[in-house]
This record gives sequence, structure tokens and C-alpha cells, in this order.
Amino acid sequence: MTEQIKIAHGGGGTLMQQLITEEFLPLLRPGSDFHDLADSARLPINASHIAFTSDSFVVQPLFFPGGDIGKLAVCGTVNDLAARGAVPQALSLSLIIEEGFPLDDLRKIIKSIAQTAQQAQVTIVTGDTKVVERGAASGIFINTAGVGAMPANLDFNLSRIQPDDVLIINGPLGDHGTAVMSVRKGLNFASQVTSDVAPLNHLVKELIDTCGDKVKCMTDLTRGGLAANLNELARSVGFIIDETKIPVRPAVRGACDMLGLDVLTVANEGKMLFVVSPAAVEQALAILKNNPLGTQSAPIGTADNKAGRVRIKTQIGGERIVDTPYGEELPRIC
Amino acid sequence: MTEQIKIAHGGGGTLMQQLITEEFLPLLRPGSDFHDLADSARLPINASHIAFTSDSFVVQPLFFPGGDIGKLAVCGTVNDLAARGAVPQALSLSLIIEEGFPLDDLRKIIKSIAQTAQQAQVTIVTGDTKVVERGAASGIFINTAGVGAMPANLDFNLSRIQPDDVLIINGPLGDHGTAVMSVRKGLNFASQVTSDVAPLNHLVKELIDTCGDKVKCMTDLTRGGLAANLNELARSVGFIIDETKIPVRPAVRGACDMLGLDVLTVANEGKMLFVVSPAAVEQALAILKNNPLGTQSAPIGTADNKAGRVRIKTQIGGERIVDTPYGEELPRIC
Repeated sequence: MTEQIKIAHGGGGTLMQQLITEEFLPLLRPGSDFHDLADSARLPINASHIAFTSDSFVVQPLFFPGGDIGKLAVCGTVNDLAARGAVPQALSLSLIIEEGFPLDDLRKIIKSIAQTAQQAQVTIVTGDTKVVERGAASGIFINTAGVGAMPANLDFNLSRIQPDDVLIINGPLGDHGTAVMSVRKGLNFASQVTSDVAPLNHLVKELIDTCGDKVKCMTDLTRGGLAANLNELARSVGFIIDETKIPVRPAVRGACDMLGLDVLTVANEGKMLFVVSPAAVEQALAILKNNPLGTQSAPIGTADNKAGRVRIKTQIGGERIVDTPYGEELPRIC
Repeated sequence: MTEQIKIAHGGGGTLMQQLITEEFLPLLRPGSDFHDLADSARLPINASHIAFTSDSFVVQPLFFPGGDIGKLAVCGTVNDLAARGAVPQALSLSLIIEEGFPLDDLRKIIKSIAQTAQQAQVTIVTGDTKVVERGAASGIFINTAGVGAMPANLDFNLSRIQPDDVLIINGPLGDHGTAVMSVRKGLNFASQVTSDVAPLNHLVKELIDTCGDKVKCMTDLTRGGLAANLNELARSVGFIIDETKIPVRPAVRGACDMLGLDVLTVANEGKMLFVVSPAAVEQALAILKNNPLGTQSAPIGTADNKAGRVRIKTQIGGERIVDTPYGEELPRIC
């Protein structure tokens, strides 16, 4: 019989210690044992400010083309920190597991977390394991929180955006949402679309190491897609984007058509939107395109003085408003 | 009809913004709006080290005598930080909500979180809201992560414990676990037992401000109770505790007898175990008893040189080993 998670694995006793010591730590923190772990981690901080963030992940299915809930949980939090300009340093890992969850699946997820954390050069320093009875959760939910050191003199935020600043995206839109939805709906072209889930902190660091404060603001595009993020940034400025310049893979475009989705509102998990001053655009594009996660980087629009308004020039030459999505298109996409 | 949480409340769009702006922020961050919130918070840090921790909360029922899941989520993380000697500074708040969850209950929980955060003097600085479909979670799960500044020259940890150091507890054991289990089992004496859930950071700070490094180690007693924590601390030392000195309320003792629970393994949510050097015991007790959360503080045992072993002198004069609980006694107690 397949080994499964039991209620007792979450009880704070011997069985939980075994799970952590024998299954989690060898992958996440080789060389450490249960007794090295206090409930809080102690971290040296070499900065006057830190960035701090947290996200829970409830994606279905747990494994999808290009990734899984574990990789997603690391990338989501790493990218939130990177978007503030912070260097991600440490993550927490909190699991809520349904009784009966296959131990093999849990191992796969933990392995994926370990690999992604290594890729992003962050350490899992603290965590928590809860188990709930059958039917009280669907498989596994993962929360990661993260801290990172912030640069001394840079605070990237939307108040720094000015008209004529340029919007740059590091690659095609809609891969993650389309990949997950395709699997969920059992569509044939599922194999053609792969999630873009990736840690973007190195890409971001390369950019700000060179362009510094000519980068005005950054935001990673997840739930709600480009449409949601642009509307969040549109406060004292507006934006006009150009549909012909927004990179979208043909397979994703096809999937969105079939599923009735607007690619502007579809989730991404490896895309950062950069707002940069006009003078820095060429340099920024050169740096981004040189990174494997940014080869298809493109300028897709500009800020203007129509405060609060996001518009798109359509392929056929028209123009329309891009609204914040209402919110029900893609449940459990991350 | 009662207002309920919909899938779209978790979609990253307009409805989620409304929930956060109209329901959460007025309680948690009066005066701020949705656009003030980046996905990561930026925090000034005035310390060379921080403590960082995270816990998920899945308690059932959500409301119990003396508290609720919201109060628990703040106290749990604040107490984990305090146990490292850190001054808790900021918390994240991540919610996983089941579709159909009553908005009124959510409001009550958020209000409780706000009140407890105010009491502990910590700020909720970042967060995340996910909604899963009916049946995919049981009501609501809450994750809080926290960061706090650590004192420059103090690092409380189990390696500092020496034989003859004294164990002090800040009040009676077993209140939280017994209160929750009594409600769950529908026992009559439920009204007599109240959870001890409370933020202990001020109590801890008062102690270390005075006793400094004469406090060797601290650990907050949650899942697995005193038995689990003592066994975690028993590495290069052992412990002998005295049953007659361990404070337990009569109603809790009665409830444990009826429920077949060993009070040493029952969860607490407002109890810190301090290990202090013998010379500091009187001073420590005086300080702890002066705080409303420590009036019944008591020395309950000492460290000895029987490494790895936890023993208890029983009321009838015998002695027995106190093992780490296996872990299945009290599921979903926190």
C-alpha cells in the first residue's frame, strides 16, 4: 500500500519530527537535524531595510506542465521580493496537508521546492506542518513567506512612474494560466503549453545593478494578469499598451480562444513588468534579453498623463479600455 | 441571505480589492488604501539580526472559549518570535477561505486579528487572500509569518542550558487544548475552561530586559505540550520536573481526566517555558508574577546531567519518563 500522510504527522510529536527529519531536511537543509530548528530562524541582516512578503498556494492540479505547487510556492514569493528590488534571502515553508495525501507526491513537491530554492539562491529557514482530516482540504496547500535585503537608496514603487516611461515585459504572456487550465479542462494541446513559472530575482538584479533608479517600478504578473497589474500601477499616470507588441505564443493564443480567456487577464508566474525611464530602454532590453528568462523581452507600451486609465491599441487599429478583471475567470491558478 | 465569500473574492481582481479595501484595511491598517500595498512590504530594520517564523492555523472550531483562529494566528507567531528573544515587529496575514464562508464570521476574525495585533504592538504589513471552492477547505485556514529585531548580543538557544538551570512556567498548563476539545466534544464543563491564548512578547521583554543572558532559553508550549518541548530541549542536558509544582487549573484537570488526556501533552497558546540560571530565579519569578500574563508563574523543575532524558517526580512520590507524544492526541488544536 502507498505510504500516506496521517493525522499524527501534524501532531507536534514523534511522527512529525520523523517526517521533518527524514523527508524534508535531507532535501531542504542537508546536514541539519530537527534539534537545530527553533520555531523562529535567526538571520543576519546587512541592510537598513528588508522586504517581507507572504503567499499561499492552492493551485489545482498540483502538478502541471512546467511545474508544480512547490516550484510555484518558491517562485511566487521570490518574485514578490524581487519586484521590490530586494535580494531574496530566506523563505519559510508552511504546509497544510490532507490526511491520506500520498507521501510520494509530498516528496516530489519538497524536492521541487529544494531545487527551485537552490536555483533562486534562497534558503528555507523555518516552517510548519499541519495535517487536517480527509475532506477538510484538497491535497495540500502551501504558504511561503520571504524576507530579502533592500538596496540602500532605491525604493521602487508606483509613485516614481512618470508619463513617457516605458513598459517592458520579459517574455510572452499567459503561459502559466493557459497551461494549468488546459490540463484542468483536458484539452489536447495541453502538451504544447508550459507554465512560465521561474524565479526572476537574478534577472531583476542584473537589471537594477546596471540601470539603477532608471528602473522606476517593477511588478510580477500573477493572478489577474497584465490587466490587473497595470490598473494597480495606474494612479497618477495612465498607460497605453500596443497589442501588436505584446508577445504571446501561438499555442497560448489558441488556447485562450478555445477557453474564452483574455490573455491580458491570464496568470503568469515568470513574468515581470518593468517601468523604465525612456533613456534606459535600450540598455534595459539588452540586459534582459541576455538572460535566459528574458530572451523575448519587449517594450509593450508607455505611461501617459491620463491618470488612472489603461488603454490598449488593438491589432486592427482601434483602442479600448483595459479594466481590472472582476475576478472569477481562473480560480485556483496559483 | 447572509453575505458569503465567493470564488471571485480570491481572483486578484475588483472583488478581491473590494474585500481588502472595505473589510480588511479599515480594521488592520486604518488610513491606508489598496494602492498603498505592494506585494512585499518594506520595513526598516534597526538590528544586525532578525528572527523570522511562520505558522499555519487550522483550529476547529474557529471560535472557542477565550479566543478564535484570528487571535491564535497572531499570538502563535508573536510568541515564536518572542521565544527567540526578538521584538516582534511585523506580521503577514495569508487567508485560504472556503467559498460560501459567512462574511460576518470573516469580519469577526479580522477584528480579532486587529485587536490582538494592537495588544502585541505588531503591524500587519502584507498578506494574501485565496478562495477555494466549496468542500476544498473547511471554512478558513490562516497563515501568519513574522519578523522581529533580535537583541545584539543575546541568542537564546538550547545549547546554553546547563545542569541546575531552573525551568519556570508563566502559569497553569493545558487551558487551550482542554478548552477547544471540550467545545468539540460538547462537554458540559466547557464554559469553565478558557483558552490561554495571549501574546507573550511584552512579558518576555520585561524578563530579558532585567535578567539578560541569565535567561538561557525560552520556548512557547503549543502542540505536543510541555512534554514535546522539554524533549526538544533535552540534548546535552536532561530535565527533572515535579508534578506537585506544575500549575494546572482544577477544571482542566477534570477535563483531562474525562477526555483521557495527559495534561503534559496538551496544547497551550499563552505559556512560555523559561530556562534560567539558578542565581536569577527569584528575580525572574518576581518580574513574571508582576505581569498579568504571569501571575501564577512557578518553578517546575531543573536541568540535570542525564542528557536526553526528561523525568517527572509524580504526586505519589514515584518517578517516570516523560516521552515525546507520538502525535495523534489532539488534531486541529491550533
